[in-house]
Amino acid sequence: MKVVIIGGVAGGATAAARLRRLNEQAEIVVIERTGYVSYANCGLPYYIGETIQDEGKLTLQTPESFRARFDIDVRVRQEAVRIDRAAKTVAIRRLDDGGLYEESYDYLILSPGAKAVVPSLPGIDDARIDTLRTVEDTFAIKKRADELVEAGKTNAVVIGGGFIGLEMAENLAHRGFSVTLLQRGNHVMPTLDYDMACEVHAYLRSRGIDLRLGFDVVGFAPDDERDEVRVLGGNGESIPASLAILAIGVAPETHLAEEAGLELGIRKSIVVDAQMRTSDPSIFAVGDAVQVKHFVSDDDALISLAGPANKQGRVAADAICGRNRSFAAPQGSSVLKVFDMTIAATGLSETAAQRAGLACDKAFTSSPSHATYYPGARGMSVKTLFDPESGRILGAQIVGFEGVDKRIDVFATAIRAHMTAADLEDLDLAYAPPYSSAKDPVNMAGFVIENLRCGLVKQHHWHDVDALTAQGAQLLDVRTAKEYAEGHIDGSVNIPLDDLRERLGELDAGRPVFVNCHSGLRSYVACRMLAGRGFDCSNLAGGWRLYATVAKDAAFDARPTHPCGAPVA
Amino acid sequence: MKVVIIGGVAGGATAAARLRRLNEQAEIVVIERTGYVSYANCGLPYYIGETIQDEGKLTLQTPESFRARFDIDVRVRQEAVRIDRAAKTVAIRRLDDGGLYEESYDYLILSPGAKAVVPSLPGIDDARIDTLRTVEDTFAIKKRADELVEAGKTNAVVIGGGFIGLEMAENLAHRGFSVTLLQRGNHVMPTLDYDMACEVHAYLRSRGIDLRLGFDVVGFAPDDERDEVRVLGGNGESIPASLAILAIGVAPETHLAEEAGLELGIRKSIVVDAQMRTSDPSIFAVGDAVQVKHFVSDDDALISLAGPANKQGRVAADAICGRNRSFAAPQGSSVLKVFDMTIAATGLSETAAQRAGLACDKAFTSSPSHATYYPGARGMSVKTLFDPESGRILGAQIVGFEGVDKRIDVFATAIRAHMTAADLEDLDLAYAPPYSSAKDPVNMAGFVIENLRCGLVKQHHWHDVDALTAQGAQLLDVRTAKEYAEGHIDGSVNIPLDDLRERLGELDAGRPVFVNCHSGLRSYVACRMLAGRGFDCSNLAGGWRLYATVAKDAAFDARPTHPCGAPVA
Repeated sequence: MKVVIIGGVAGGATAAARLRRLNEQAEIVVIERTGYVSYANCGLPYYIGETIQDEGKLTLQTPESFRARFDIDVRVRQEAVRIDRAAKTVAIRRLDDGGLYEESYDYLILSPGAKAVVPSLPGIDDARIDTLRTVEDTFAIKKRADELVEAGKTNAVVIGGGFIGLEMAENLAHRGFSVTLLQRGNHVMPTLDYDMACEVHAYLRSRGIDLRLGFDVVGFAPDDERDEVRVLGGNGESIPASLAILAIGVAPETHLAEEAGLELGIRKSIVVDAQMRTSDPSIFAVGDAVQVKHFVSDDDALISLAGPANKQGRVAADAICGRNRSFAAPQGSSVLKVFDMTIAATGLSETAAQRAGLACDKAFTSSPSHATYYPGARGMSVKTLFDPESGRILGAQIVGFEGVDKRIDVFATAIRAHMTAADLEDLDLAYAPPYSSAKDPVNMAGFVIENLRCGLVKQHHWHDVDALTAQGAQLLDVRTAKEYAEGHIDGSVNIPLDDLRERLGELDAGRPVFVNCHSGLRSYVACRMLAGRGFDCSNLAGGWRLYATVAKDAAFDARPTHPCGAPVA
Repeated sequence: MKVVIIGGVAGGATAAARLRRLNEQAEIVVIERTGYVSYANCGLPYYIGETIQDEGKLTLQTPESFRARFDIDVRVRQEAVRIDRAAKTVAIRRLDDGGLYEESYDYLILSPGAKAVVPSLPGIDDARIDTLRTVEDTFAIKKRADELVEAGKTNAVVIGGGFIGLEMAENLAHRGFSVTLLQRGNHVMPTLDYDMACEVHAYLRSRGIDLRLGFDVVGFAPDDERDEVRVLGGNGESIPASLAILAIGVAPETHLAEEAGLELGIRKSIVVDAQMRTSDPSIFAVGDAVQVKHFVSDDDALISLAGPANKQGRVAADAICGRNRSFAAPQGSSVLKVFDMTIAATGLSETAAQRAGLACDKAFTSSPSHATYYPGARGMSVKTLFDPESGRILGAQIVGFEGVDKRIDVFATAIRAHMTAADLEDLDLAYAPPYSSAKDPVNMAGFVIENLRCGLVKQHHWHDVDALTAQGAQLLDVRTAKEYAEGHIDGSVNIPLDDLRERLGELDAGRPVFVNCHSGLRSYVACRMLAGRGFDCSNLAGGWRLYATVAKDAAFDARPTHPCGAPVA
């Protein structure tokens, strides 16, 4: 049996190693266009930022080490240029000498990955504009960054606030660059909803990133005298950059598959079955180039993440060796570090759930990373999406610091198990003061959702508040007088929770009461007290904290694309 | 409705607050024997160690704050002394003046907790021997520790290596004490099996703790001249202590329930139904004093942890208010910090599974906390227990540093969802280099178990090695020559993995090959290679690392109770 694998990173490399472990006799050939295989692609930005200082750390595996350990024929700087499905051959070009040759296969695995999207804009070919995908890209950007730092030319522009964009913003800032981050829509991080992203925006600004939301890049103008490129905005602005990183997204790299006539899906991704088999039973495909079913929505999706790619590589190897494992649909679990902040998500966002046509309600909770009496606890903001009928958890987003990655993985596991909010209440998670609270943040999300679903409390949202204020609704703020003095919702009256029973007479029992506190806990207690005394009341989800974060974000950069208090999808 | 709650910490305090949130009109009385309610009982050792420096942090809630927020009548330094079930009254003694009075109830919630076990040993009443349970205990120990540190008398002995014992050992060491830790059996931490505990032993010793395993305390001898107490061992040893902490376990504090004729279970714990109702439908019980069903084994169990206690308090309050929630059986999820190490477990240990009569196999994996190319990654040792037939995960133990708490919570959630090893493979967990690897340690456990269950590889264990050596079995070590030179299994031959294909002739193909590497990964690759070439082979689970850790532990303190390489239960 002879297997040719096109692409030697993540899914391709995993498939190769697994194949060998399953079949000692197979001939395994890996064709890799770059000079490196199985490299640490998720670590590339950190090499530029010098968090990873040893170049060797990026390239732990080499063609030689692969051959020695797995008896795999790895050919770097060679590019597959054509697949002949009938003849079962691949035409391959040696990039060093241009030579072309053919390689036959019994099975072919495509692991071409995704390429950085480069829009056709005036001036886009300027040498000072880079994308980051390969080790070669990394070394080139690192070299230029080193020279610029040396020369004291430290204006950097990052275009796009997704994973790579934020990582590059952080890493360039570490190197001493003044970083301007340009974002087309109203928020960074596509895995987050707008409301959760607002906290990230505030944090990025606090760390000195010049974040420009709603910024449409329309072109680039070279300024060779200064060795800069000016990034031109649709609003007439022009931002100088000694180094510009284009990170607006990736697209499946599937021209080979397309030319071979394989069935393609959304954005020309490769359609595969549960064993990663394409429409040609001798050809498998894995990684960023394939279309998957989203675990939660069951919709077709593209998920460009290393975890699924690795698992797909295993499944493809298993299938080729006659082991009938299925690739389990991914759910988009992701986590990102940016400076000290951790941003994580799993399952569907509110936006994605709406797009998928799923009934979806949301809860906002704010929890300490661990028991507050033990030093070092920091708050995390949790948004949990759930099916209002069944209580099934559809997704979660968490923004915070320590312990965010833990809770997203618990949510991810719960979602995988089709758990409901009631199940989250029951989770028996490990508690000690340095690690959590007796009621873990995930338990808390379950409690809050179940209180809603059981009718113990009603909630309204940050995006309802301005209308309530305009209507002259009865708004009650149960924080302390000091907290209230530092900022509050227009038109709200302040009665601290601990005084509420005595001062009930100040409320109009004939009208609904819309209650808020800082994060939603005290106001919940107030709502229960008021409900027990006959009031109709509602709790502001996420409290003043969330409302103020969104309002501040809207005010920071007020323009038509994101009016105060209302997100524009 | 009038509810009297006996015990104002954890379960009792949670029940009180939830009751109020569910019923604004109920009369709620909390009787607490100590001077403090709802205090941070899991934080007490850290106050002694001065990690928590502010006394106020231990006692965030006060009787006054409870009254102000929840309109709850909290009576501290009062002790319930008798329950009259027919009259539905509780007799209460005011500890300050000895006055006795009766309080009627419609519902009674017992949250008496567990008391430290104090054995009847000669000299046990010595004032220099303390147990730690209450805030008062904490202040007393702290005061004595302060005085001893001041006086330069820093011999401390901790008796018992469970949660409190290890936390006290760490915290006393922080204060500058020389700590001797006495453990009766062959290992610390009852949540761990012996093999996993050996790594903890080595770590404690590396941190300067004088750990004595197999040490039976038979009595105490005062040495008033030195203001010390000598802890006397069954082996004739006598260890001087300026401060001795007795932490050999806890027992349900249920004399009230017993005298009232409530049905009792194991170790005189209180028997309750799923709504935490005792055999008297007007009396509920929560927390460390109640008997629970273990989620995994379905056996009766005592689980003295804060998480379940809090959840039980909620469920009892719900039931009293006519909301029919059930307490979900706990699974003993726990985590402990000791110095920088994290020790965590969930579900059943191997010992517990054997005791429960469950078929149980085990996998040992060793994984980095995050991608090794990103700075700061540290290894963690994972032991996963599974049902060999179904692959269902029965339990997990993890010893390591960063990220241990995360993986145990993922395991806890997976166990709660009745997941199998194949499900662990499929978990879509969040990956970025600072947080994890594309194949998370939990995924890795799934991969290894499924490889075993599918027959891709066989394994043998550390406790099989000495017999294999004695039989002259063919032992192959596939680590590098340098690793081998630094220590190896007696009788093993060294052929580094990357040389194995060329040096196959050195092996006897007619005899089974028992392969090891450092942690089990390279030896797995070797096993697949050998199997693909017709060899019968077996992989040493956990590799040299686990074998050497256990062997070193046994050698450190060799005595009949734990002979080399074989644990004594």
